[in-house]
Amino acid sequence: MLKVKTPQEVWELIDREFQMISGKELTPLSDAVGRVLAEDICAGEFVPDFNRSTVDGYAVRARDTFGCSDSIPAVLTLCGQVSMGKGATGLVGEDMCAAVPTGGEVPDGADAMVMIEYTEDYGDGTIGIVKPVAPGANMVYRGDDVKPGQTIFCAGTRLMVQDIGALAAMGVAQVPVMVQPLAGIISTGDELVPIEDTPGPGQIRDVNSMLLRAEMMQAGARVKEYGIVRDQEDMLAETLQEALQECDMVLISGGSSVGAKDATCRVIQQQGENLLHGIAMKPGKPTILGKVEGKPVVGLPGHPVAAFFVTKLFAVPLLDRLAGTKRHTWPVTAILEENVGANHGRAQYMGVFLRKEKNKIYAKPVRSKSGLITSLAGAAGYFCIERDCEGLSAGTEISVELYG
Amino acid sequence: MLKVKTPQEVWELIDREFQMISGKELTPLSDAVGRVLAEDICAGEFVPDFNRSTVDGYAVRARDTFGCSDSIPAVLTLCGQVSMGKGATGLVGEDMCAAVPTGGEVPDGADAMVMIEYTEDYGDGTIGIVKPVAPGANMVYRGDDVKPGQTIFCAGTRLMVQDIGALAAMGVAQVPVMVQPLAGIISTGDELVPIEDTPGPGQIRDVNSMLLRAEMMQAGARVKEYGIVRDQEDMLAETLQEALQECDMVLISGGSSVGAKDATCRVIQQQGENLLHGIAMKPGKPTILGKVEGKPVVGLPGHPVAAFFVTKLFAVPLLDRLAGTKRHTWPVTAILEENVGANHGRAQYMGVFLRKEKNKIYAKPVRSKSGLITSLAGAAGYFCIERDCEGLSAGTEISVELYG
Repeated sequence: MLKVKTPQEVWELIDREFQMISGKELTPLSDAVGRVLAEDICAGEFVPDFNRSTVDGYAVRARDTFGCSDSIPAVLTLCGQVSMGKGATGLVGEDMCAAVPTGGEVPDGADAMVMIEYTEDYGDGTIGIVKPVAPGANMVYRGDDVKPGQTIFCAGTRLMVQDIGALAAMGVAQVPVMVQPLAGIISTGDELVPIEDTPGPGQIRDVNSMLLRAEMMQAGARVKEYGIVRDQEDMLAETLQEALQECDMVLISGGSSVGAKDATCRVIQQQGENLLHGIAMKPGKPTILGKVEGKPVVGLPGHPVAAFFVTKLFAVPLLDRLAGTKRHTWPVTAILEENVGANHGRAQYMGVFLRKEKNKIYAKPVRSKSGLITSLAGAAGYFCIERDCEGLSAGTEISVELYG
Repeated sequence: MLKVKTPQEVWELIDREFQMISGKELTPLSDAVGRVLAEDICAGEFVPDFNRSTVDGYAVRARDTFGCSDSIPAVLTLCGQVSMGKGATGLVGEDMCAAVPTGGEVPDGADAMVMIEYTEDYGDGTIGIVKPVAPGANMVYRGDDVKPGQTIFCAGTRLMVQDIGALAAMGVAQVPVMVQPLAGIISTGDELVPIEDTPGPGQIRDVNSMLLRAEMMQAGARVKEYGIVRDQEDMLAETLQEALQECDMVLISGGSSVGAKDATCRVIQQQGENLLHGIAMKPGKPTILGKVEGKPVVGLPGHPVAAFFVTKLFAVPLLDRLAGTKRHTWPVTAILEENVGANHGRAQYMGVFLRKEKNKIYAKPVRSKSGLITSLAGAAGYFCIERDCEGLSAGTEISVELYG
């Protein structure tokens, strides 16, 4: 039998046994979404580099507007007009104002903007202000967004779409990022044929190469596929050696159990060491984590659904470890629609379909026999029934981790 | 003043005014994640195409094992051995069994698998079974996963990683998908310089081109940038014409308000019609939706944060409409950490930082002045304070839509 570890023990093992790999490169900002920062990003300039109006209107000294109203406007002398994209010239002195468009520079002397809606142009070189403003109103100050020396992003941050704007504003056109780890993918099994082929008697298509490739690429890896290897120890050993020379980590699906034909465990042992064989989870129990030449080798179950879960739960954290980042996920709270049983002494991962009704989210567990690949299709995510829990009843609030 | 519509009215307008555009193409399965199916995917074969064992063990007729136990094993005659990837030959008759590896074919006659752990090989051509099995145990039947004629995915489905396995199992190596709509992006403003440049007095970098590009690409669009256009109606008109000839939709950021230099509204009116000018939301009120030559043109505010929200809330649904799909999002339930006020009569969208503590998720609202681009950086998502709500107190459960 396998001597199993809990998922938590496996995550700790990953952190203990593997380190960040060191490669850095520059990538254009337009390709930076999903990449991991290799360095802190510190500002070198003020953003914006000038006091900036956020409205169309008049730059004023706020105190000159105090007490004004519709019936008693503050009458200010128009001393200038600021053009977009040009610096402001001149000074807004006492009882003066300057016309400034949205985004234009607020001239020196002024400390607030009055929106054009609260003004009247008397046409004689003076402007009536009918609503007082507080200092700082309707403008941002130089450096309000970013000041020189300020750290905006830390090394190890995975850049998201919402981070791109700040980098663009700071002029970071080339972004220092970690080289994406290269994950090698090997499928083993005498029964496998490429997905383009029609399976003969007793054969099935190699689902895992394609599925794990998609999963690892979405997680931020580069991927190299090594195709289908027959259930022969020497052939697997050779392919693993080749993959280890080129890749930063290797996933082998199939042959991860303890049967006579399950070669993964033995091949890893010949070339390095097995750190674990078996995880107390369902699906996915017959999982191997090995270390060969300092690189992680994951032996995944051949069942695609199990391989999918093990990859998500352990190969992706391994990838993050190599890339020097941690992933935060934000589970969705949903109401379980059916009772589910579990008394396996192992953490049970179960896919769910989600639906919204009246601002609540409902989760219908995916029921299927082990290994049916269609049980993943259309599901939105999964939840975990902890190993010491015997089941959950309909109506229970669960935390659903989204797949994508 | 703008005559504003509510967000809900805008979404209905989008559905009413625009239709799916028709292009289809084939894409390799390896590139299919994120693409929208152009046709239903129906199965043409059985998956698996044979009764398949899910364990290492012996194929039996379940009824021959009834009543057996450790002390009184059922003794069955071994009539064959199935190899992986080869069809099973022969028939499992009464009181007979055949050795079958995990994933191997269960021979005709047998209707269950006994795990090897519950058997004993007596070495004389007979096998002892010490635990009874029910019919169908430890195996999947031919077509359990997929049967010919079964619709597995409907046209309009956006393919996710978890869908790839089912397509691989069915041999869909080339996937019929919608051509990704091409979104043209135009930035307008005399104050803008390319992000590579150092802004001069009164200038800022063109954040929106890069930010909207990233946002639209993540949402599944192809993107073409038309660069920075100065605040001149004729130049904007010309660039919009060019973009409309090449693209399926156009986003123009900047100049969407009602000032003298705000050309977007007038240019759309010259070439087509404005469907709306102004949305009752914050940020993002001065938004335009136009229709020129049947194609949507979105006039976005110049403030990057406002442009980001308007793109997420309206340009992405427009994209989905053109691509013939609907997007489902699953908001995260979080506990608001601070009071937030709002009494604008408009839906107020606010970014949040999230953190987990003891299985609960807490949301800290992003406080910043209008238009500060760093207020997006590092935030995980946003929530909406409805237009008729005056604010929310700390401790309230909110629904957070994730950015990525």
